[in-house]
Parts: sequence; C-alpha cells; structure tokens
Amino acid sequence: MDEIYQNNKKVTLQDIALKTGFTKNTVSRALRNKPEISEATRKLINDAAREMGYITNTIAGALRSGVTKTIAIILGDISNPHFGIMAKEVEIAARRHFYNTFIINTDENYEIEEKAVYSALSKKVDGIILCPTQRNTDDIQLLKKNGIPFVLWGRRFEEEPETDYVICNDLMGGYLATQHLIERGHRDILCLTGPSYISSARERLAGYQKALQESKINYNPILIREISVTAGECRQVVRKVLEEKIYFSAIFAFSDMIAWEAIYTLNQNSLNVPKDVAVVGFDNIQSRMFLPFPLTSISPSKKKMARRAVDVLLKKMHDPMTGQYFHEVIDPEIKVREST
Amino acid sequence: MDEIYQNNKKVTLQDIALKTGFTKNTVSRALRNKPEISEATRKLINDAAREMGYITNTIAGALRSGVTKTIAIILGDISNPHFGIMAKEVEIAARRHFYNTFIINTDENYEIEEKAVYSALSKKVDGIILCPTQRNTDDIQLLKKNGIPFVLWGRRFEEEPETDYVICNDLMGGYLATQHLIERGHRDILCLTGPSYISSARERLAGYQKALQESKINYNPILIREISVTAGECRQVVRKVLEEKIYFSAIFAFSDMIAWEAIYTLNQNSLNVPKDVAVVGFDNIQSRMFLPFPLTSISPSKKKMARRAVDVLLKKMHDPMTGQYFHEVIDPEIKVREST
Repeated sequence: MDEIYQNNKKVTLQDIALKTGFTKNTVSRALRNKPEISEATRKLINDAAREMGYITNTIAGALRSGVTKTIAIILGDISNPHFGIMAKEVEIAARRHFYNTFIINTDENYEIEEKAVYSALSKKVDGIILCPTQRNTDDIQLLKKNGIPFVLWGRRFEEEPETDYVICNDLMGGYLATQHLIERGHRDILCLTGPSYISSARERLAGYQKALQESKINYNPILIREISVTAGECRQVVRKVLEEKIYFSAIFAFSDMIAWEAIYTLNQNSLNVPKDVAVVGFDNIQSRMFLPFPLTSISPSKKKMARRAVDVLLKKMHDPMTGQYFHEVIDPEIKVREST
Repeated sequence: MDEIYQNNKKVTLQDIALKTGFTKNTVSRALRNKPEISEATRKLINDAAREMGYITNTIAGALRSGVTKTIAIILGDISNPHFGIMAKEVEIAARRHFYNTFIINTDENYEIEEKAVYSALSKKVDGIILCPTQRNTDDIQLLKKNGIPFVLWGRRFEEEPETDYVICNDLMGGYLATQHLIERGHRDILCLTGPSYISSARERLAGYQKALQESKINYNPILIREISVTAGECRQVVRKVLEEKIYFSAIFAFSDMIAWEAIYTLNQNSLNVPKDVAVVGFDNIQSRMFLPFPLTSISPSKKKMARRAVDVLLKKMHDPMTGQYFHEVIDPEIKVREST
C-alpha cells in the first residue's frame, strides 16, 4: 500500500504553483492559511489544490504516522440492528471526543474475534470496545499483558475482575420480563435463552428464575431452550417445541431478533401473538426502527451504555496502567407494547 | 499509542525462557515451529508464551508496519440491517481472499464520509468499498488522483465514468415494484423515494415512471414524496399525505426500512396493509431477518453484489493504474409476500 501511496503522481506544491500561476511560497502559505494571503487567493489556491487531489500536510502526516485518533468497536453480528444501533451510538459518543471509530464484526466466532483484535492492533488503534464471543480469553489476556486500553461491552467474564466492562443489568432485565408475563397471568413461560457461555444469557436466565421463584412457580427445565445468537436457528427450536406438544402461553426471548423469529414461526403455525402466546424480547430495537409489529421488550439505554463505554475507555487511554477497574452495570426498563 | 505498545512490560523471549526453563534459543525455535523441537516442548513453550501475552514476530511485525491486508467498507447507516447484511457479505467475500475488513459509518453525512476516507487512508488500508453520500465528490477525486484502489457500492456518479462501481439495477427494481402493484389493480401509487441526489433513488423513481407510462397511467407529482435515508422522517411524511387527504391505494418505498415505517404509520391511522394499502419495499431484508410482518420487496442479490465489489476491488489493488473501469449493474428480483 505504501508503494501505491508513493508511486502515483502525488500532487506537489510545485504542481499547484504551475497550475495557479502563484509562486510555490505563496501556495504553501495559502494552504497553511497564513493571514498575509488575501481571502480570494487563499480560496483560489485551496480550490485548485482540492481539485488536483493535493494531500495536505495534516493528512499526509496522518497517513505517514497512522496517528489519527481511532477507537475500534469489535462486535458480534453487525446484521443485528441491536449492534448496529449500538455502534452508531458509540460513534456519536467518540466523535464528541474527536475520535474516529471503525467497526469489526466477529460473526460470534472466536477465531475471527482474535483476528479482529490483531487487526485493530496492527492498525494502531488507541483503544478497543469489545463485545467478546466468550469462547476464549486469549485475546483479552494479550490486551491486558500488553497494556492496550480496552473495555468489554455487553458481556463480562466473572472470573476476570481486573477487566473493565459496561453491561446491562441483565439479571434485572430477565426478572422484569418474566415478572411482567406472570402479572399478565402466564405460568408456562418458554425461555429462548442465548448460549450459556455468554454472560448476558446466563444472567437473563437467572432473572427469569428469580421471578418464577418469587411467584412460587416451579422452574421447568423443559421450557428452557438455548439458541445461538445469529439468525435462523430459532425457527427450528420453536418448531420442535411445538411438535413436542409442550405447553407454553408465553415466551421470554434473549433478544428482539429471536423474539421476532419466534413470532414468525408461531404465525406460520397458525398461532397468534398475543392472543395465543405473549412474547417479550430484549434490546428494544423498536426505539429506533419503526416496525409495524409492536413488541414488548426490555430496553437497555443504548445511548447511556455507549457513552459510558467511551468514557471508561478514554480513562484507560489517558492512564493505561491505573490499577482501577470500572464495572458498570446499567439498569434497563421494560417497554410494554402489544405483543403481551 | 506507540508509547503504550512499547512502554509496557512487553514479554520477551528471555521472559519465556526464565518461566519455562528452556534456553532462549530453544524458545525462539519453538515459537518459529522449527522441526527439530519436539511436539511436547513446542506446545509447552507456545502455551506459556500465549499465557504470558507474548506477541509473536508475525504479529509484532504487523503491528510495526501496519501491513495486515485490510479493506475498509464505508457505508451510510450501520443501524439499517440492509447495510449490516451487506457489510457481513463483503467480510465473507474478503475473508476468502485473506483480507480483514473494517466498517466505517457515515451516517449519510458528507463531512463524516470525508473523515472516514482520511481515517481509512491513515490506517493504510489496501482498498476501500464506498457507498457515497453523494453530497460531494472531493474525497472521490482525492482517491482517484492518488491512485488509491476503491469501488463504489450501491450508488454511482453518472458524471464520473472513470470510477468503478457495483450497483443494483435500480431502474429495473423500481419498474418491477410498480408493475407488480399495477398488476394488482393499483393506479394511485404513492412513491416514497429517497433524496434525489442519490443515484439509486433517481433510478428507482425512473423505473416507477416507466411502469406507469407503459400502463398509460398519468404520472402525478403529488404522489412523489422524498424522504431522507435515515430512520424517523417517514412517519411525518406519510402522516402529512393522509392529512392532505391525497388518495393512494399502494406505496412503493425506497427501502424496507421506509416501507416498515410507512406501514407502522398507516396502522397508527387505522389503515390495514394490504387490505387498505398495498406496500412494496426494497432490499428484501427479510431474506436474513425473520420478521413477523411479510413484506413484498425488491431483492438485490446481496451476496453477488458483495462478491463483485470485492472482486473489482482486488483487480484494482493488483493493478491500480489500469485504464479499465468496471461498471457492474446487477439485476434484482421481486419477492412477493403478504403486504401486496
């Protein structure tokens, strides 16, 4: 790439001087916005430079040293609008501090996560916001041992207290969702949970159990079904539960994507939501996407979580070797809509 | 960042030698997978190195020179699953050629697009796939003048034939959508089009006009409403059309996101889809997202468009100064569902 950047007809001050008829000295001063150059000349030279594709010193400097301030966002599935909205919020928060961001998708695959971390490091990012796949912690260990500032987002490793994270209060979320369904009279609640190696899945499930316990409803393991976090698998799982003729009158889904896919499958099997089955999702994607199907959902504050993640990361970037660790657990709300 | 990478307790071969009891020479040979080292020793040393956060030469080299093979995807709105799915497809296609990708979001704002291009350049990416905001071409000129390989995706500048692009046949898409509605008996079709500075919006609208003309239906400008491409504005526009009591029995929307938001607004105004109003979207997001509301939509092949974009970009990267330009226009299909 360096070759490409260097080989090609790079526009020089001399080229601009030739084109505009000013001296190289005038061109140089105009491009650096020196006050002794008239506004008209300055504009003429800048317009010509721009038109000719001249790379200014500031940009050239950044190109040489790669020092633009950048944060990498490494996340699980960019085709899930929950992550897309989140990435957008992080960008907005980072931009307020004059940081660029770029997003790397792991597809919930640890091999790709590790490559993403290396890729971010090789591009010399200033810090990383990481939603880990949680299949392995080698990359986290590498970041820690090398003092690279990073913050986990949305998921945490209980066994790694010396790691910063910003997460949703998932236990509370699972509890609120289940309690709401119990209040609506449901006792047989199918829980479409995420993989148990993901902390948020475990904690949401614990919230579900807590709500059942409080209402003295027996916990029935047959109603707990694990679903992978990328789209498609939920249809089979719900179809199987229906085929097994297991009774349930409500669903608590790990995410809105899973909730929608469950409703899609119920509809295909002539079951109506909420008449036959009530459904609660998680993420409240509908706060940003105006979908015609109103889904009750647990709503983490995406803006708050994004801002906190950026704030924590900035603290770590400014003082990477501090012994202080930030563990932020942000309470969600329930947004009741017509699916329950 | 360089400071951070260098200052911290970076793990050396000597550290690993001390920890494992092997000589530095053995450690070095084990880490380079030399055959004369036994499998057991190799594993022991590699495990220790990994656990200690040792950065291998390959990674260290990449960190120093920033030479990992990387493609930047610069796109309009990462919270729109259409772009998310597209980015995922580009990643898959790029990975087959051993390229990493990272995504930068422009929020459909040219200032941010320009920053995104500079940011990608400063990170020395090997090439760029760009969905331009189309408010300005300065950044494109800069890329061209400096011989940076890039390909436009989804949108094109008619006035810049010496630019590579991979787009959907938007004229055909607009035509298919409108023809389908006409076949269903509709004559008053509200067209919720994108901003006219975006080529795909202009071309889809031209397709709409072509279908009307073929069926000898008068073109009624009052039924054409421009909507910005990020979420939220559609509700007002549809509400206004309803308030103005302008008659329409169908909608052709620029995107699925706009179509859903239109249906959401119709429902809020007690209008049923498809009973009162038939709706066709564009992007066929439902090929990947199992939403319970079945929307008829124009379906560009996301996989094909992503693959072609990567293929064209690879060609440009291998031979950046070729005078050849690739203009790929990929035909979409219509996917009929229950909204029409």
